[in-house]
This record gives sequence, structure tokens and C-alpha cells, in this order.
Amino acid sequence: FFSSAPIRATLFPGDGIGPEIAESVKQIFKADDVPIEWEEHYVGTEIDPRTQSFLTWESLESVRKNQVGLKGPMATPIGKGHRSLNLTLRKELNLYANVRPCYSLPGYKTRYDNVNLITIRENTEGEYSGLEHQVVRGVVESLKIITRQASLRVAEYAFHYAKAHGRERVSAIHKANIMQKTDGLFLKCCREVAEKYPEIKYEEVVIDNCCMMLVKNPALFDVLVMPNLYGDIISDLCAGLVGGLGLTPSCNIGEGGIALAEAVHGSAPDIAGKNLANPTALLLSGVSMLRHLNLHDKADQIQNAILNTIAEGKYRTADLGGKAKTTEFTKAIIDHL
Amino acid sequence: FFSSAPIRATLFPGDGIGPEIAESVKQIFKADDVPIEWEEHYVGTEIDPRTQSFLTWESLESVRKNQVGLKGPMATPIGKGHRSLNLTLRKELNLYANVRPCYSLPGYKTRYDNVNLITIRENTEGEYSGLEHQVVRGVVESLKIITRQASLRVAEYAFHYAKAHGRERVSAIHKANIMQKTDGLFLKCCREVAEKYPEIKYEEVVIDNCCMMLVKNPALFDVLVMPNLYGDIISDLCAGLVGGLGLTPSCNIGEGGIALAEAVHGSAPDIAGKNLANPTALLLSGVSMLRHLNLHDKADQIQNAILNTIAEGKYRTADLGGKAKTTEFTKAIIDHL
Ligand SMILES: CC(C)[C@H](C(=O)O)[C@@H](O)C(=O)O
Ligand SMILES: CC(C)[C@H](C(=O)O)[C@@H](O)C(=O)O
Repeated sequence: FFSSAPIRATLFPGDGIGPEIAESVKQIFKADDVPIEWEEHYVGTEIDPRTQSFLTWESLESVRKNQVGLKGPMATPIGKGHRSLNLTLRKELNLYANVRPCYSLPGYKTRYDNVNLITIRENTEGEYSGLEHQVVRGVVESLKIITRQASLRVAEYAFHYAKAHGRERVSAIHKANIMQKTDGLFLKCCREVAEKYPEIKYEEVVIDNCCMMLVKNPALFDVLVMPNLYGDIISDLCAGLVGGLGLTPSCNIGEGGIALAEAVHGSAPDIAGKNLANPTALLLSGVSMLRHLNLHDKADQIQNAILNTIAEGKYRTADLGGKAKTTEFTKAIIDHL
Repeated sequence: FFSSAPIRATLFPGDGIGPEIAESVKQIFKADDVPIEWEEHYVGTEIDPRTQSFLTWESLESVRKNQVGLKGPMATPIGKGHRSLNLTLRKELNLYANVRPCYSLPGYKTRYDNVNLITIRENTEGEYSGLEHQVVRGVVESLKIITRQASLRVAEYAFHYAKAHGRERVSAIHKANIMQKTDGLFLKCCREVAEKYPEIKYEEVVIDNCCMMLVKNPALFDVLVMPNLYGDIISDLCAGLVGGLGLTPSCNIGEGGIALAEAVHGSAPDIAGKNLANPTALLLSGVSMLRHLNLHDKADQIQNAILNTIAEGKYRTADLGGKAKTTEFTKAIIDHL
């Protein structure tokens, strides 16, 4: 059924709680005989004294070669001139679309039931251009850049995703009533792509109104596509609806088919090394990596084991109000496999 | 008790449902003997055939002279070269701070209880600069402008407001991890002002995280101050927590003490003229105008009558699931006075 040679995938455990939650992924994948061989690289803020590097060429090359990887949280190096390692990876690997599914976890109650949203975020430009300067003392400006190329490609990805996953509707989120040229171009590109997918409903929603509607009734939305910063904001809002970033997966899609799945939460230095971290976000990100590899059986098995463990409620980590250690939660998932 | 001469205040009923909800305000204020004499001006999209104007000098001058006013919803004129009338008023009157209180209405159930938040939005610059251009075909940029002057003045207003209203904490909302110069300057200004108010707690929260925390637990926040676009987004999100823009007031504060209270919802052309509109947002905005004028007794009386009418639940407009007409709801409030 599977080709006998395992698939090589890059693993960046990251900083803080990263190594512990990565260990959980490795154990669970192994217990389920997932045909993946991890190629582990350290990317993070603890500098190797000899290379003085946060991020090596070898780490980037590993993802480029394997075309698929999983990353844990990375802190931002302290000191001037360093940008976030997360952003550097997005840039270097040209990870142009960030897909964040948010669904209610059965048995884990929040104020919202049956949330089932996919946010697809443009991941390379917009407000994240890094172009800023002081005009005169006390007057600074940042440039938001929107290009036709990046907008078309993320829109294309969103509609492709919607179709492939049997989704009904794509909503483009914008503020084109104010930023007529930048967000206007983004919308124009979405419209062009929408015409190629007549079977998918298409609508445009202003970001402020979108946030109001999301908290009132998230069922109004299905797949949402948007420029970079709006995606940052809306995906966190959506994560909040179902319990927070500790529970929601994310996957970055790059030009040429690269997929780098990623837990979006922080490195939680306060609980690092204490066996207290919740590995769910990284695990579900691993599941989305499996789906990207078309290993749907393995993905289903592991996803069900995670959801059943949480639903059962006997082993939950502290962030979910439980008392289970990371390793106990991991073992419970393995028992559910 | 009150000086015998009534206070003159400008009233812009606005478009769509504007005239109906403004009528509700006028009747209720009159029934409560509020010592206000309205100076009514038409600002909106139905052009006077002789002046061909959406907004006259006389309308602006009325607010400048009276220093206080109330505005209903205004549609955006269709056609090239017209910016939103809302924005034009903010710009012309230099309305630098937009204050939006969001609190749970007793008896009107949403997913959230006891919400009590104040968002204070910088209202003149940031992403709303209007500076945009096409660099080359397919590449457009918008400028976000942050100035020390505008940041200090809105921060000053936020701390002043917090102190005057017995609030404990001000949270500055930002994305300075990405926009280090612009949002960085905003934060620097907030910190400077915070030092002058040692009795008010001060914290800084990244916008994505803020949205996640707001939907998980809005009680984590008190007064929030932020640049223009974040304020647009977060104030709508907060409104959503308590039922939407139909229920939440807003007040714009200008240089030199001008206060222009405003219902932030749209002009709802679909129900205009049908006696179906909910006047609550405009009424509560009127109440905030009364507070600005230090007419706290009148403000309390009217606010209580509104809240009691909604809590009682016998007369609710359609948007709140009831069957009352605008005029019936208005009468019910007057009966509660
Ligand atoms: C850590 C930060 C730079 C990053 C972002 O703003 O994109 C994070 O919030 C995210 O959503 O991945
Ligand atoms: C109508 C629109 C221009 C306006 C804004 O973006 O500020 C509105 O959303 C608001 O919040 O007052």
C-alpha cells in the first residue's frame, strides 16, 4: 500500500516547549507506523557557539529537498536587526499561503458550537513588507504592498482548497472602502479567480464587519481568504472561538508544492521543560502535513485519537483545565490509536 | 438647576433609517426635558439639486460653533473621487479620538455576560491616510502614517478617560513586532503618557492575541487604546460580543473639546422609511453626548429607560427578535422615563 521507502520530512522542534511537543508527535507517529523519517534540525534562539547561527542553510535546504516539514514554536532573537525566525522561514521558503482550520473540538466546550472555518492568509507581503521609515522626527510610515501576483496565487490556492475539500463558499476579507488601491487590487484578483470556480460561492466582507459577524455567528462563514495582517488577526480570533492557539493547526504552502506545517502558539518559556505543554496544535499540524502527503488513513487515525482523548476528558493538559502531563496525554492518544 | 438658556447641539440625521432614529432621539429627549435645542442639518447622499452638495459649510460650522453634536448613519456617495462622509467629518472637524463603550445590555442575552469595555481609537491617521499609489502595474502600496503628535493626544485622552471614569487599566493594542517603527512610535507615546498616570495600570497587547483573548474572555480588558484600523476592527468585534452595532454608542472627540456622538451602524436602506429601525445605538450615543455635557442626571434617566425597555423585552425591534416598530419602542422608552 505504501511505497516501502519512508518519506523524509523535516522537523524543527523549535524553542521552549518545542522539543517536548515534537517528542509527542514523533512518538505518536511512530506508534501509528506513519511511514515518515524525520530529518531534525535546530532552528531557534539558542545559538550554537561555533556557528553563531539561529538558522542554518542546512535547515532551509532540508525543507527545500524534502518539500515537507513540521515546525514548533520559535522565539524571536533578541537584539537589533533580527526579524522573527517565523517570518524568515516564510520569506526564504516563499511560503505564500497560510492555511488555518478552526473547528470545535468535540467534548471541549467553548461559547461556540460547530465552528468549522478555514482561514487562508496571504503570507508574504501586505503590512509585513518590512518597509518603514521616519519621514521627519515624530512622523513615521510603513508601506503595505499588494501585488497582483501574490494576490492571484493565494486566491487561486483558496478556491482550489475550497473545491478539493468540498467547501461551498469563499469570502474575501478586506478594507477596500479605505484602502481602495491595495485592498482593491486584492479583491480584483479574488474576483478573477472566482470566475473560474462557478461552483464555489464568492462574497466580499469588510474586515470590521467580518469580526463582528464571526463573534455573533461563525456559521456565516466557510473559507476566508485575505491579505497578511487581516489573516493574522482573523485566524487568532477564530482560534479563540474554539479554545485558542494551543488547539489549532496551521500549514504554510510554498511555491513548488512545499508544505511546512506549524504550531502557531508561542514557545511558552515559563512551562518549558516541565512536561506541562499541550502538544495538540503541533499534532494537528502534523496531521495536516499527512493530509498534504495524501496519507489520509494515517491522518484520520491520529486525528481521531487526539480528538477522542480530548473528548473523553480523562487526560487533559493544564491549559484545558486538566492535570495530565505532556507524556501522559501522549500515551493516552497512543492508547486510542 | 440648569441654566435657563438651552444648549444648542447639532443634529445630522443622515441617510436611510437616520431620520427615523433621529426622531426617536428628539422625542425621548423632549419627553425628559433635556435642555437641548437641536440645530438640524442634512448631511448625506441625497443631493440638494441646487447646491449639489453632500456636506455644506454650514453643517460643519454648526458643529464648530456648538461644539457638540449627534450624527446618524451616512452612506458613501457613489462615483469616483468621493470619500466617505464619515471620514470627511472626522478630518474636517479634527475628531482625533473615537470612544466606543461596549457593555452587556441587561436582559439581552448573548454568549457573553458582563462585558464592559471601552475602545479608544485614533481617528485621523494610520492606515486611513488615503495615501496610496501604483508603483508599477500589478504592484500597489498604501502608506500607514503614525505621528508622535496624534499618538500622544489619543493616549492622553485614553488615560484621562480611564481616570475620569474610575477605570483601572489601559491596554495599548499594536503590532509592533512587525511594524516596529509605526506601531513602535505609537507604543512609545503610550508609555510616555502612562508614566504620568501611575494609578492606572498599563499594558501592551499584540492585536492578534488581543482578538483571541477578547473572544475567550473579554473581562481581561478594560480600556483599550489603539491606532485607527485596529480600532475599527476591535470596536466592531467588541460590539459583536454584546449584540452588534445596533446597540453600541460611539463618540468622536475633537481638538478644542468638540464632541460628535455617532451611531456607527449603516444606513440600512432596505428597511428605511418602514418604521422598523432600532434607534438604540443613536440613543445611547445621545446619552454619551449628554455625559460629555455633564448632564449626568438626564443621561442616567434616559439610559435606564432604554436599558429597562430592552430588558423587559415586551417592546423590541426586529433586529433583537421582537416585533415592535421604531415608534412603539420609542413610546415604551418614554413610558419608562
Ligand atoms: C510571531 C508573529 C511574527 C506571527 C505573525 O505576525 O505572523 C504570528 O502572530 C503568527 O500568526 O504566525
Ligand atoms: C464606514 C467606514 C469608513 C468606517 C471606518 O472604517 O472607520 C466605519 O467602519 C466605522 O467604524 O466608523
